Amino acid sequence: MSALTGSSPQTHDIAVKELIKPDIQRIEEVMLRDLDELSGHLDDLLMEVLRYGLLNGGKRLRPLLTILAARLCCGCENLDIYRLALAFEYLHVATLFHDDVIDNADTRRGRPAVNRAYGTVAAILAGDFLHARSMAIIGERAGIEALKIFCRATSGMVDGEFLQLRNAANYDQSEKGYFAAITGKTALLIAATTEIGALAGGADDEKRRALRIYGSNLGCAFQITDDLLDYLGDQNITGKPTGNDLAEGKMTLPLILAVNRADKKDREYLLRILKQDELRRSCFDEVKEIIAKYSGFSDTKRKAEELIAEAGAQLAVFSQPAQEKDRSLLGSLAQYVLGRNK
Amino acid sequence: MSALTGSSPQTHDIAVKELIKPDIQRIEEVMLRDLDELSGHLDDLLMEVLRYGLLNGGKRLRPLLTILAARLCCGCENLDIYRLALAFEYLHVATLFHDDVIDNADTRRGRPAVNRAYGTVAAILAGDFLHARSMAIIGERAGIEALKIFCRATSGMVDGEFLQLRNAANYDQSEKGYFAAITGKTALLIAATTEIGALAGGADDEKRRALRIYGSNLGCAFQITDDLLDYLGDQNITGKPTGNDLAEGKMTLPLILAVNRADKKDREYLLRILKQDELRRSCFDEVKEIIAKYSGFSDTKRKAEELIAEAGAQLAVFSQPAQEKDRSLLGSLAQYVLGRNK
Repeated sequence: MSALTGSSPQTHDIAVKELIKPDIQRIEEVMLRDLDELSGHLDDLLMEVLRYGLLNGGKRLRPLLTILAARLCCGCENLDIYRLALAFEYLHVATLFHDDVIDNADTRRGRPAVNRAYGTVAAILAGDFLHARSMAIIGERAGIEALKIFCRATSGMVDGEFLQLRNAANYDQSEKGYFAAITGKTALLIAATTEIGALAGGADDEKRRALRIYGSNLGCAFQITDDLLDYLGDQNITGKPTGNDLAEGKMTLPLILAVNRADKKDREYLLRILKQDELRRSCFDEVKEIIAKYSGFSDTKRKAEELIAEAGAQLAVFSQPAQEKDRSLLGSLAQYVLGRNK
Repeated sequence: MSALTGSSPQTHDIAVKELIKPDIQRIEEVMLRDLDELSGHLDDLLMEVLRYGLLNGGKRLRPLLTILAARLCCGCENLDIYRLALAFEYLHVATLFHDDVIDNADTRRGRPAVNRAYGTVAAILAGDFLHARSMAIIGERAGIEALKIFCRATSGMVDGEFLQLRNAANYDQSEKGYFAAITGKTALLIAATTEIGALAGGADDEKRRALRIYGSNLGCAFQITDDLLDYLGDQNITGKPTGNDLAEGKMTLPLILAVNRADKKDREYLLRILKQDELRRSCFDEVKEIIAKYSGFSDTKRKAEELIAEAGAQLAVFSQPAQEKDRSLLGSLAQYVLGRNK
């Protein structure tokens, strides 16, 4: 990261945050206005649930990507693109609502999860509402072609979740299976944010493709970093305890690499732990040690770096001077995703 | 009903079923083909859940309405309208999946509910999938205007559910509130089936409006009949026990009318029962008697009849000889909804 920017990771992150601040503020403003408009037509309790779930200090990464991609392609600025971009935050929060029901989650971003605060019924229904609203926005503001891309992404998300569901007690997974699952679960939607942004910005096929691949790689790297943080994160910074994935028996890349590479003894030891609920909770440090022994963490990290390098390379197609600012911002965002520690 | 057709209710129903049979069969065929196409791209478990939920002898009333409305307006027949109509069955089943999770249902149509057969996670996710697919079909096959109508309907459904949620322990409801809730929960979507059918059939504003009102009234009458059957239905015919709504403290029109009209003594008696879980389960016959005393059932039935009469009147705009068959079929369907005993 520092090689790219000539500064330390921390300085780089602060600089990125400064650069994206005006766009993030505008996303927040447009969202507040949209919620105000909705509140005239919707049930008060539904509005309360929507505000609770949406106004919680989210990073707004998804709408930001749409805005940057569109601006990079059309070279102009207009409010419509912010309204379109909201769709991605709405869909994201819709999936969080349903995920929290599915996981029976207690908290989200340091507050009671929506299912705890308002009950399962409200969480499912408000998720359905946001899902419908996001699709309506996409169709209305970006057209049928965009809606198709969007629906492919949401189908892919469900498909990825089912793949994971079917693989629930399968501790012998392949790297390929892992990438199929995270592509469906995370990357397809991030790819849709940038591809639909490109479409809204009037991009040609080459640019559209470049931004789709950028988004897809960014999404994969984002998920991989998430999975790494679940082993190596600092709870004081991430705000959530490590070891959740292991406790749930979730096979993420570091562990998959270790199981695949381990010698007979280590492999049997790992599988014995994985098959028992209690051991998965108590043997976190032992498992971490074995993963490290087989370079599970370093190779996972390297994989994320490769994906981000490829994402950055895709941006080369935007070579005009006027595109420099947003191109560089997308490049920096990719580095930011890689370097994030929370 | 017999006044309209010159035959007994039973004969009328059998005749209607015969008339709609070719369309229903075609809906089933098109759905099977669509599922086959999907199965090439989707996870096997997801496909299994979809087939389980969709291929269960559903009445296919919603897609049928779209097809009849479209045919009435364009006077022609084509396969595309069947493909479009599927969207309404998909959305319907998506809501059933989520409803069954919300109600923690054991059975649906005499089989284990999808949440029992495949678990809550699968039920939520497969519902999300069908929801997304239905919107994609609408956008792709009927355009943005249709997508807007569709989204208004799905928003309205969530809104209606929230209204009901907020009113959960409010036993002193108005007739107006009841109609607001059933319009959101049921009628808006039925109105969307016929209005989008009209749109796809190239209808002018007058015909579109007529079919929207027809659908809305049909939907309300459908829900009212449902609510009546929960008190007066024959379990041997409906396949489900009566008294569920009362047991759950759900305020439907017969009970609302009774509470509003009852004298002081009867009203206090009713409210005492309503406020206690156990009494709501044990005093079904007593409550039924009080509702009947205040004409709660007969006036509810009359309300449904008025709605259906108004729905039928809307069809007068389709006065050409070539429209006679489908117009009469929509008229008969309205009567069928009113007279249904399961």
